[in-house]
Amino acid sequence: MEYPPPFSDSQLEDLVSDIKDWQVTHGSLLKLVNTDQDSTVLTHPVGACLFPTLFPKELVAEDEEWLYYMLKDDEFARILWGMHEEVKEEGYVQDHTLGIFRSDYMLDANPAGQVKLKQVEFNTISCAGGIHSNLISDMHRHLQRRGAYLPAVPSDSTTSINLSASNLPPSHTLSTITSGLISAHAVYGPPKSPDAEQTCILFVVQPRNFNVADERPIEYALWDQNIPTFRVELSPEVLARTSLTPTRELLYQPPSRPAAAPLEVSVVYFRAGFEAEEYSGPGCGDAREARVRVELSRAVKCPSILSHLTTFKKVQQALAVSGVLQRFLPSSGEAIGIANTFAQLYPMDTSAAGLEARKLAMDEETSEGYVLKPSLEGGGHNVYGSSIPTFLACTPEENWSRYILMSKIASPNVQNLLMSPQGLYKGPVISELGVFGVCLWRRSGEAEGRVEMIEDKEPCCWSFKTKSAGVDEMSVVKGYGCFDSPALVDNDVFTAYCRDGEQSP
Amino acid sequence: MEYPPPFSDSQLEDLVSDIKDWQVTHGSLLKLVNTDQDSTVLTHPVGACLFPTLFPKELVAEDEEWLYYMLKDDEFARILWGMHEEVKEEGYVQDHTLGIFRSDYMLDANPAGQVKLKQVEFNTISCAGGIHSNLISDMHRHLQRRGAYLPAVPSDSTTSINLSASNLPPSHTLSTITSGLISAHAVYGPPKSPDAEQTCILFVVQPRNFNVADERPIEYALWDQNIPTFRVELSPEVLARTSLTPTRELLYQPPSRPAAAPLEVSVVYFRAGFEAEEYSGPGCGDAREARVRVELSRAVKCPSILSHLTTFKKVQQALAVSGVLQRFLPSSGEAIGIANTFAQLYPMDTSAAGLEARKLAMDEETSEGYVLKPSLEGGGHNVYGSSIPTFLACTPEENWSRYILMSKIASPNVQNLLMSPQGLYKGPVISELGVFGVCLWRRSGEAEGRVEMIEDKEPCCWSFKTKSAGVDEMSVVKGYGCFDSPALVDNDVFTAYCRDGEQSP
Repeated sequence: MEYPPPFSDSQLEDLVSDIKDWQVTHGSLLKLVNTDQDSTVLTHPVGACLFPTLFPKELVAEDEEWLYYMLKDDEFARILWGMHEEVKEEGYVQDHTLGIFRSDYMLDANPAGQVKLKQVEFNTISCAGGIHSNLISDMHRHLQRRGAYLPAVPSDSTTSINLSASNLPPSHTLSTITSGLISAHAVYGPPKSPDAEQTCILFVVQPRNFNVADERPIEYALWDQNIPTFRVELSPEVLARTSLTPTRELLYQPPSRPAAAPLEVSVVYFRAGFEAEEYSGPGCGDAREARVRVELSRAVKCPSILSHLTTFKKVQQALAVSGVLQRFLPSSGEAIGIANTFAQLYPMDTSAAGLEARKLAMDEETSEGYVLKPSLEGGGHNVYGSSIPTFLACTPEENWSRYILMSKIASPNVQNLLMSPQGLYKGPVISELGVFGVCLWRRSGEAEGRVEMIEDKEPCCWSFKTKSAGVDEMSVVKGYGCFDSPALVDNDVFTAYCRDGEQSP
Repeated sequence: MEYPPPFSDSQLEDLVSDIKDWQVTHGSLLKLVNTDQDSTVLTHPVGACLFPTLFPKELVAEDEEWLYYMLKDDEFARILWGMHEEVKEEGYVQDHTLGIFRSDYMLDANPAGQVKLKQVEFNTISCAGGIHSNLISDMHRHLQRRGAYLPAVPSDSTTSINLSASNLPPSHTLSTITSGLISAHAVYGPPKSPDAEQTCILFVVQPRNFNVADERPIEYALWDQNIPTFRVELSPEVLARTSLTPTRELLYQPPSRPAAAPLEVSVVYFRAGFEAEEYSGPGCGDAREARVRVELSRAVKCPSILSHLTTFKKVQQALAVSGVLQRFLPSSGEAIGIANTFAQLYPMDTSAAGLEARKLAMDEETSEGYVLKPSLEGGGHNVYGSSIPTFLACTPEENWSRYILMSKIASPNVQNLLMSPQGLYKGPVISELGVFGVCLWRRSGEAEGRVEMIEDKEPCCWSFKTKSAGVDEMSVVKGYGCFDSPALVDNDVFTAYCRDGEQSP
C-alpha cells in the first residue's frame, strides 16, 4: 500500500507553495530572534509535514480515555501531593492548581508487527507545541479539502490510501488550553486587594522568545473573553513589575498603564522556568526569587512547584501501579502485563534495578538499545545509544542517579515528506503524539494529602510531531522534526501499510 | 491637544514588541521573495502605524453614502459602458460583471482650517490593501483594549485625546470582498460543460508574489464556504491550465488533481494584469492572450476589460457631472461647488484646459503645487512637484496626453509613529483612506449600453494607509508608508488638534 500517494513534480511544487503561504498567513512561524530590531523582525515557517502522517486510529481513542483516567485518579493525585514535603516551609494561600500537562507517546512495533503506544515523556510545565499542531492540523485539513492529497494517477484503495476529511481529526488545543485558564481565572474570583480594580492572567515567558506563535494565540483568545492577560519575562520583569501585598495578593503593573491602578493576578501561566539553566545561568540569579514570589502568592499557579516536581519518572512509577495501566492497552483484549510496557524503564541509582541498568548502559553493545534521560522534567538533554557509555564516563558517578534508562522504541515503517528551513526530506519518519490534559484541582484535607478534581477539560487535545527516522532528537523549534497531524486509519490498514513498506526495496 | 498620548520608553518598547508579535501571529507580513527556496521563505511584518491615526468622523460617514450613490448611479454605469466600443469585436457570453473597486481619498485642509476629503485615485482592478488594513484595524482595536494607548501620566480630555473602542470602527473588508465573490459565483450557477463536475473561482495572480497576505485570506474564506478556489499566475499558468470549450466555458485543471475532471470557472478575480509591463515585459508575451481567453469566456470577470478601462480620469469626469458631487460635500450645508473640489484637475492634452495645464506643469515654480499622474489605472508612477518639468522634457510631447495634472493636497497636521523594516518614524503623517465598493451588475439592453445593478455589498469597507509627511509616494508594500486604521474623532476635535499642532514649535 502506498502513502503518501504518488505525485508529480508539479503537484509537489504546488503543495510546497501552498504550505508556505498558508503558514505565512496563519502565523505558523518562528521568529529569527537574532534579526530582532526595534522596528522589524524576520520569521520563517516552522517545520511542517507535507502530508499528515498515518497513525492507527484505535490507539488514539484508547489513549485519550487513559489520560483522563490518569488525571482523575487518586493514585496520581497522591504522588503529586507527596512532593508537598519539599516545599512545605513556604505555606500556601491558594488551594487551587491548574494543570496543563502533555503526555508524549510514540508507536512501538514489536517483531510480530503489532503496534502500540509507548509513553516517552510526561510534561507538567510550559507544555508547548499545542498551538503549532493546531495550526498544522487546520492546514492539513485545508489541503485535503482543496484536493492537494489526491493521487497523480487514479488509484484504487487496495494499493494506495486516499485520505478523506474523516481521517483528519480537528484539533481543539487552543480552545481547550484557553478554557482551562478561564476556569482558573473564574475560580480566583474578584480582586481581594483594595489597591486593584480588576484581575488579570500573567504569562511568565522566556526572554528573546522565538516561539511566540505557540503562546500569543492563547493570550489573544483570553482577551477575546475580556480577560486582561499580560506577558512578563522571567525573571527581572517578574520582580520589577509584580509585588506581594501583606495578604499575598500578587499585583502587576503593566508598562502600558503606568498611571493606572495595578491589576491583581488571578493565574500565573508558566511558559518559562522549566530548565535548570534558567535559574542558574548568568543574570538568572533572581529567577528563584521570582518563582518563590509567585508560589507564595494567592494566584492560581499553572503549574505549582508541587506539580512541576511531578517528573516523568514519578509518573512512570504511578503508571506501574496495577490497574492503571490496563486502560492503556489496545482493546484487542490481549493481557499484556505491566512488564511488557515498562519493564525496560530503569532507575540509574544504586538499587538492584539501578545496578542492572548501569551495566546495560556502560556496555557498548547493549547501550545501543537504550536512551539515557534526565529524571527531571522531560524534553531534550537525552543521550542516545552508543553515546551513553562515553557520556557516563564523563559524568561523576554520584550524578548518575539523576537519570533513568529507557529502552529505545522500534518505530513502524511510515513514510512522509518534511519541509523545514533545513530543506525537504522524503523518507521514513517517526511521529510523537502529545496528549494534552487540562484540569483544575483543589487540595482538601491537607493532613492526608488528598486532592479534589474540580474540572477537567474536554475535548482532549494534542500535539503531533514527526521527524526523519534517522534523527534522534525531537524538537521542532530547534530544527529537528516538523509539526504534523495524524491521518487516522484502521489498525489493520496501518499494519498492512507498514509491512508493505518493510518488504519494498 | 496631544495625540498620540505621552508615553514612556518602556511603554514604547512594550508596544513595539506587542505589534511585532501580533503581526507575526496573524500573518500581517510580507514575503521576502528573494529568500524564497523550496523549503522555506523569510517574511517580515508589513509597515504598521503604532497608533491609529486621527481622522474626522463626519467625513467618513459622508463618503460611504457617496460611494454607494456613485456605484449605483446611471451616470457612472454609462461611462463604464461607453468603453464597450473598444472591445466590442470580442463579443460577450456573460452578462454579469463583478466590481471590487477602491476609491482613494486624502484629507485636504484649506487655509481657513476646514478639512475635507479629496479623491486621489479610483481603482477598478486588483484593489489591494484591504486585507492588510483589516488586520491592522483588528490589531489597533486589540491594543486599545489591552490599555496600550493609555497616556503615561493621567490626563484630561482638554489636553489629550484618549481613545476608546468607539473611536475605532471595525473593518469588514475580508468578509465584504468574499461575499462579493460568493454572489458572482452563485449567479454563474452550475457547470454548463459536460466535462466539468463542479465550478470554481480562479484568482489570477502575479508570479513571485510578496503580498500573499493580502490575497490568500480571501481564498481560504471561499473554501470555508465550500467554494473551490485556485490561484494561477499570469500568464503562462493561465494558458497552460485553462481551456475554452466551443461554448466558451472556461475549464481549469488544478495541478493537484491531474487525474480528476477539470473544474469550470465561475469567476475570475484579477490580482494581476493591472500594469502595462505585465503585458509587454520579457516573457510576458502571452499575458494578452491569457487575458483575452478569460474575457471571451463565460466566467464572470472581476473586473471585465470594460470596467478595467474605467480609469481614474474617466471617473473623475463622471464626478464632475452636476448633482453627483453634492453628496460628497460636508454636511455643514455650505454650497461648495464643483470647481472647489475638482477645478485643479487638468487633462494634459491639447484642449484649452490641457494647454493651461502644460504651462503650469512646465514652470519650475508653479509645478511645485501639482502632481502629474498617468491617466490610466491609478497607483504609482506619479511625478511630483518640481520633478515635473524635467520629466516632461524627457517625455515625447505626443505622450503628454496620457497624463493628467492634479493639484497637490494640503494635508492637515497630524502626528503618529510608523514602524517598518526601514525603521521607526515619529512625526507628521499623511493618511489615505481607500473606500471599497463591491457590486455585481448585469448589462441589459445592449443597444443603449445600460446596466442593471444586481447587488451591492454592505457593510462598506476600507483600507487606510499612512506615510511620513515628507514622502511623496504611498505604497506600503514597496516600503513607503504603513497600514493603519482611522481613530474617528469629531470634526471640531480634529480641527482643534491640527491647529494646536501647527502652533506648537
